[in-house]
Amino acid sequence: MHEKYMREALKEAQLAFDKGEVPVGAVVVHGGRIIARAHNLTETLNDATAHAEMQAITSAANCIGSKYLIYSVLYVTVEMCPMCAGACYWSQVGEVVYGAADPKRGYSLLKENLLHPKTKVTSGILAEECRELMTEFFRRKRH
Amino acid sequence: MHEKYMREALKEAQLAFDKGEVPVGAVVVHGGRIIARAHNLTETLNDATAHAEMQAITSAANCIGSKYLIYSVLYVTVEMCPMCAGACYWSQVGEVVYGAADPKRGYSLLKENLLHPKTKVTSGILAEECRELMTEFFRRKRH
Repeated sequence: MHEKYMREALKEAQLAFDKGEVPVGAVVVHGGRIIARAHNLTETLNDATAHAEMQAITSAANCIGSKYLIYSVLYVTVEMCPMCAGACYWSQVGEVVYGAADPKRGYSLLKENLLHPKTKVTSGILAEECRELMTEFFRRKRH
Repeated sequence: MHEKYMREALKEAQLAFDKGEVPVGAVVVHGGRIIARAHNLTETLNDATAHAEMQAITSAANCIGSKYLIYSVLYVTVEMCPMCAGACYWSQVGEVVYGAADPKRGYSLLKENLLHPKTKVTSGILAEECRELMTEFFRRKRH
Protein backbone atom coordinates (compact mmCIF):
# COMPACT_ATOMS: atom_id res chain seq x y z
CA MET A 1 0.00 0.00 0.00
CA HIS A 2 2.78 2.45 0.93
CA GLU A 3 4.55 1.67 -2.35
CA LYS A 4 1.48 2.50 -4.40
CA TYR A 5 1.27 6.00 -2.99
CA MET A 6 5.02 6.51 -3.00
CA ARG A 7 4.92 5.82 -6.74
CA GLU A 8 2.53 8.75 -7.04
CA ALA A 9 4.90 10.92 -5.01
CA LEU A 10 7.70 9.78 -7.34
CA LYS A 11 5.66 10.93 -10.34
CA GLU A 12 5.54 14.36 -8.71
CA ALA A 13 9.29 14.25 -8.08
CA GLN A 14 9.80 13.47 -11.77
CA LEU A 15 7.76 16.56 -12.70
CA ALA A 16 10.10 18.62 -10.52
CA PHE A 17 13.12 16.98 -12.15
CA ASP A 18 11.82 17.82 -15.62
CA LYS A 19 11.53 21.49 -14.61
CA GLY A 20 15.08 21.64 -13.25
CA GLU A 21 13.82 21.67 -9.66
CA VAL A 22 15.39 19.57 -6.91
CA PRO A 23 13.30 16.42 -7.47
CA VAL A 24 11.13 15.95 -4.40
CA GLY A 25 7.48 14.98 -4.69
CA ALA A 26 4.67 14.50 -2.20
CA VAL A 27 1.09 13.32 -2.00
CA VAL A 28 -1.38 13.36 0.89
CA VAL A 29 -3.74 10.42 1.31
CA HIS A 30 -6.97 10.63 3.28
CA GLY A 31 -9.43 7.75 3.51
CA GLY A 32 -7.61 5.90 0.74
CA ARG A 33 -7.90 8.86 -1.62
CA ILE A 34 -5.12 11.19 -2.80
CA ILE A 35 -6.33 14.65 -1.76
CA ALA A 36 -3.18 16.62 -2.57
CA ARG A 37 -0.20 16.32 -4.91
CA ALA A 38 2.78 18.63 -5.09
CA HIS A 39 6.39 18.88 -6.13
CA ASN A 40 9.20 21.21 -5.23
CA LEU A 41 8.81 24.59 -6.95
CA THR A 42 11.37 26.79 -5.21
CA GLU A 43 12.99 27.89 -8.48
CA THR A 44 9.82 28.25 -10.53
CA LEU A 45 8.08 30.29 -7.84
CA ASN A 46 11.22 32.07 -6.61
CA ASP A 47 10.20 30.99 -3.14
CA ALA A 48 12.49 29.13 -0.76
CA THR A 49 9.44 27.89 1.17
CA ALA A 50 7.82 26.15 -1.82
CA HIS A 51 8.90 22.64 -0.84
CA ALA A 52 6.66 19.79 -1.99
CA GLU A 53 5.55 19.02 1.59
CA MET A 54 4.57 22.63 2.38
CA GLN A 55 2.39 22.86 -0.68
CA ALA A 56 0.90 19.41 -0.10
CA ILE A 57 0.00 20.26 3.51
CA THR A 58 -1.63 23.56 2.53
CA SER A 59 -3.49 21.88 -0.31
CA ALA A 60 -4.68 18.94 1.80
CA ALA A 61 -5.94 21.25 4.56
CA ASN A 62 -7.81 23.23 1.96
CA CYS A 63 -9.34 20.03 0.57
CA ILE A 64 -10.66 18.69 3.87
CA GLY A 65 -11.48 22.10 5.34
CA SER A 66 -9.35 21.66 8.43
CA LYS A 67 -5.87 22.81 9.31
CA TYR A 68 -5.36 19.55 11.21
CA LEU A 69 -4.45 16.48 9.18
CA ILE A 70 -4.64 13.91 11.97
CA TYR A 71 -6.26 11.28 9.74
CA SER A 72 -4.05 11.91 6.73
CA VAL A 73 -0.82 10.35 5.53
CA LEU A 74 1.88 12.45 3.89
CA TYR A 75 4.05 10.59 1.40
CA VAL A 76 7.25 12.33 0.40
CA THR A 77 10.12 10.99 -1.68
CA VAL A 78 12.88 12.51 0.47
CA GLU A 79 13.04 13.01 4.23
CA MET A 80 11.65 16.33 5.42
CA CYS A 81 13.86 19.27 6.37
CA PRO A 82 13.25 21.07 9.69
CA MET A 83 10.89 23.57 8.03
CA CYS A 84 8.68 20.84 6.63
CA ALA A 85 8.89 18.77 9.82
CA GLY A 86 7.71 21.91 11.63
CA ALA A 87 4.78 22.17 9.23
CA CYS A 88 3.97 18.50 9.95
CA TYR A 89 4.00 19.36 13.64
CA TRP A 90 1.54 22.23 13.31
CA SER A 91 -0.80 20.24 11.06
CA GLN A 92 -0.50 17.21 13.35
CA VAL A 93 -0.36 14.95 10.31
CA GLY A 94 -1.30 11.39 11.28
CA GLU A 95 1.54 9.65 9.49
CA VAL A 96 4.55 10.57 7.42
CA VAL A 97 6.01 8.06 4.98
CA TYR A 98 9.23 9.03 3.28
CA GLY A 99 11.53 7.36 0.79
CA ALA A 100 15.19 8.36 0.87
CA ALA A 101 16.91 9.78 3.92
CA ASP A 102 18.45 13.25 3.64
CA PRO A 103 21.91 13.02 5.18
CA LYS A 104 22.39 16.80 4.96
CA ARG A 105 19.18 18.53 6.01
CA GLY A 106 16.95 15.68 7.23
CA TYR A 107 14.93 16.53 10.32
CA SER A 108 16.01 13.26 11.95
CA LEU A 109 19.57 14.55 12.23
CA LEU A 110 18.42 16.90 14.99
CA LYS A 111 18.59 15.86 18.61
CA GLU A 112 14.95 16.84 19.20
CA ASN A 113 11.98 15.33 17.41
CA LEU A 114 10.31 18.19 15.58
CA LEU A 115 7.22 16.17 14.67
CA HIS A 116 4.04 15.97 16.72
CA PRO A 117 4.31 13.15 19.29
CA LYS A 118 1.26 11.45 17.74
CA THR A 119 2.68 11.43 14.20
CA LYS A 120 3.73 7.98 13.03
CA VAL A 121 6.79 7.78 10.79
CA THR A 122 7.71 5.15 8.22
CA SER A 123 10.85 5.49 6.11
CA GLY A 124 12.70 3.70 3.34
CA ILE A 125 9.74 3.10 0.99
CA LEU A 126 11.13 2.92 -2.58
CA ALA A 127 14.18 4.60 -1.10
CA GLU A 128 16.50 3.66 -3.94
CA GLU A 129 14.31 5.12 -6.65
CA CYS A 130 13.74 8.28 -4.62
CA ARG A 131 17.46 8.68 -3.98
CA GLU A 132 18.42 7.86 -7.56
CA LEU A 133 16.36 10.76 -8.87
CA MET A 134 18.18 13.13 -6.49
CA THR A 135 21.60 11.71 -7.34
CA GLU A 136 20.95 12.01 -11.06
CA PHE A 137 19.75 15.60 -10.63
CA PHE A 138 22.86 16.73 -8.81
CA ARG A 139 25.13 14.71 -11.11
CA ARG A 140 23.74 16.57 -14.12
CA LYS A 141 23.97 19.89 -12.33
CA ARG A 142 27.69 19.44 -11.84
CA HIS A 143 28.34 18.74 -15.52
CA MET B 1 15.60 51.94 13.98
CA HIS B 2 14.67 48.40 15.04
CA GLU B 3 11.84 49.81 17.13
CA LYS B 4 10.38 51.70 14.19
CA TYR B 5 10.00 48.53 12.14
CA MET B 6 8.93 46.43 15.09
CA ARG B 7 6.06 48.89 15.58
CA GLU B 8 4.98 48.03 12.04
CA ALA B 9 5.18 44.33 12.84
CA LEU B 10 3.09 45.05 15.96
CA LYS B 11 0.43 46.69 13.80
CA GLU B 12 0.27 43.44 11.84
CA ALA B 13 0.03 41.46 15.08
CA GLN B 14 -2.89 43.67 16.13
CA LEU B 15 -4.66 42.86 12.85
CA ALA B 16 -4.27 39.17 13.68
CA PHE B 17 -5.58 39.80 17.19
CA ASP B 18 -8.66 41.56 15.85
CA LYS B 19 -9.43 38.52 13.67
CA GLY B 20 -9.12 36.07 16.55
CA GLU B 21 -5.79 34.81 15.26
CA VAL B 22 -2.79 34.18 17.52
CA PRO B 23 -1.34 37.71 17.37
CA VAL B 24 1.98 37.49 15.57
CA GLY B 25 3.00 40.03 12.97
CA ALA B 26 5.98 40.41 10.65
CA VAL B 27 7.49 42.82 8.17
CA VAL B 28 10.49 42.46 5.88
CA VAL B 29 12.73 45.48 5.34
CA HIS B 30 15.05 45.81 2.35
CA GLY B 31 17.14 48.92 1.72
CA GLY B 32 15.20 50.83 4.37
CA ARG B 33 11.86 50.04 2.76
CA ILE B 34 9.17 47.67 3.99
CA ILE B 35 8.71 45.19 1.13
CA ALA B 36 6.40 42.71 2.86
CA ARG B 37 3.88 42.75 5.70
CA ALA B 38 1.99 39.78 7.09
CA HIS B 39 0.18 38.46 10.11
CA ASN B 40 -0.75 35.02 11.28
CA LEU B 41 -3.70 33.63 9.32
CA THR B 42 -3.81 29.96 10.29
CA GLU B 43 -7.49 30.09 11.30
CA THR B 44 -8.70 32.34 8.51
CA LEU B 45 -6.96 30.30 5.83
CA ASN B 46 -7.43 26.93 7.54
CA ASP B 47 -3.73 26.40 7.02
CA ALA B 48 -1.31 25.48 9.79
CA THR B 49 1.59 26.79 7.71
CA ALA B 50 0.19 30.33 7.38
CA HIS B 51 2.41 31.87 10.05
CA ALA B 52 3.24 35.56 9.65
CA GLU B 53 6.91 34.78 8.89
CA MET B 54 6.14 32.23 6.16
CA GLN B 55 3.88 34.66 4.34
CA ALA B 56 6.32 37.54 4.79
CA ILE B 57 9.22 35.49 3.38
CA THR B 58 7.20 34.37 0.35
CA SER B 59 5.95 37.90 -0.22
CA ALA B 60 9.40 39.50 0.13
CA ALA B 61 10.98 37.01 -2.28
CA ASN B 62 8.23 37.78 -4.75
CA CYS B 63 8.88 41.51 -4.35
CA ILE B 64 12.62 41.40 -4.97
CA GLY B 65 12.47 38.56 -7.50
CA SER B 66 14.86 36.31 -5.63
CA LYS B 67 14.31 33.43 -3.27
CA TYR B 68 17.34 34.56 -1.27
CA LEU B 69 16.82 37.40 1.18
CA ILE B 70 20.44 37.92 2.19
CA TYR B 71 20.12 41.71 2.25
CA SER B 72 16.75 41.76 3.99
CA VAL B 73 15.73 42.01 7.63
CA LEU B 74 12.77 40.07 8.97
CA TYR B 75 11.01 41.69 11.93
CA VAL B 76 8.65 39.45 13.83
CA THR B 77 6.85 40.16 17.10
CA VAL B 78 7.38 36.68 18.56
CA GLU B 79 10.34 34.32 18.25
CA MET B 80 10.11 31.95 15.28
CA CYS B 81 9.07 28.30 15.62
CA PRO B 82 11.23 25.59 13.98
CA MET B 83 9.15 25.74 10.77
CA CYS B 84 9.72 29.46 10.35
CA ALA B 85 13.36 29.21 11.41
CA GLY B 86 13.73 26.57 8.69
CA ALA B 87 12.19 28.98 6.18
CA CYS B 88 14.68 31.63 7.32
CA TYR B 89 17.45 29.11 6.71
CA TRP B 90 16.38 28.35 3.15
CA SER B 91 15.88 32.02 2.28
CA GLN B 92 19.18 32.91 3.96
CA VAL B 93 17.60 36.03 5.40
CA GLY B 94 20.29 38.53 6.37
CA GLU B 95 18.94 39.40 9.79
CA VAL B 96 16.08 38.39 12.02
CA VAL B 97 14.82 40.77 14.69
CA TYR B 98 12.21 39.45 17.07
CA GLY B 99 10.34 40.86 20.03
CA ALA B 100 9.14 38.40 22.64
CA ALA B 101 10.71 35.01 23.22
CA ASP B 102 8.51 31.94 22.79
CA PRO B 103 9.17 29.71 25.79
CA LYS B 104 7.12 26.87 24.28
CA ARG B 105 7.94 26.58 20.58
CA GLY B 106 10.79 29.03 20.08
CA TYR B 107 13.51 27.76 17.72
CA SER B 108 16.17 28.81 20.23
CA LEU B 109 15.02 26.08 22.61
CA LEU B 110 16.56 23.51 20.26
CA LYS B 111 20.12 22.32 20.73
CA GLU B 112 20.97 23.00 17.08
CA ASN B 113 20.79 26.39 15.40
CA LEU B 114 18.25 26.03 12.59
CA LEU B 115 19.11 29.40 11.04
CA HIS B 116 21.65 29.97 8.31
CA PRO B 117 25.12 30.57 9.82
CA LYS B 118 25.23 34.00 8.18
CA THR B 119 21.89 35.17 9.60
CA LYS B 120 22.27 37.77 12.34
CA VAL B 121 19.77 37.64 15.19
CA THR B 122 18.58 40.44 17.47
CA SER B 123 15.94 39.81 20.10
CA GLY B 124 13.99 41.65 22.76
CA ILE B 125 12.89 44.66 20.67
CA LEU B 126 9.61 45.97 22.15
CA ALA B 127 9.43 42.59 23.82
CA GLU B 128 6.92 43.65 26.45
CA GLU B 129 4.41 44.99 23.97
CA CYS B 130 4.80 41.94 21.76
CA ARG B 131 4.34 39.60 24.71
CA GLU B 132 1.43 41.57 26.15
CA LEU B 133 -0.58 41.10 22.97
CA MET B 134 -0.05 37.33 23.19
CA THR B 135 -0.88 37.21 26.90
CA GLU B 136 -4.07 39.20 26.38
CA PHE B 137 -5.11 36.93 23.50
CA PHE B 138 -4.76 33.74 25.50
CA ARG B 139 -6.30 35.33 28.60
CA ARG B 140 -9.43 36.19 26.63
CA LYS B 141 -9.49 32.74 25.02
CA ARG B 142 -9.69 31.13 28.44
CA HIS B 143 -12.66 33.23 29.57
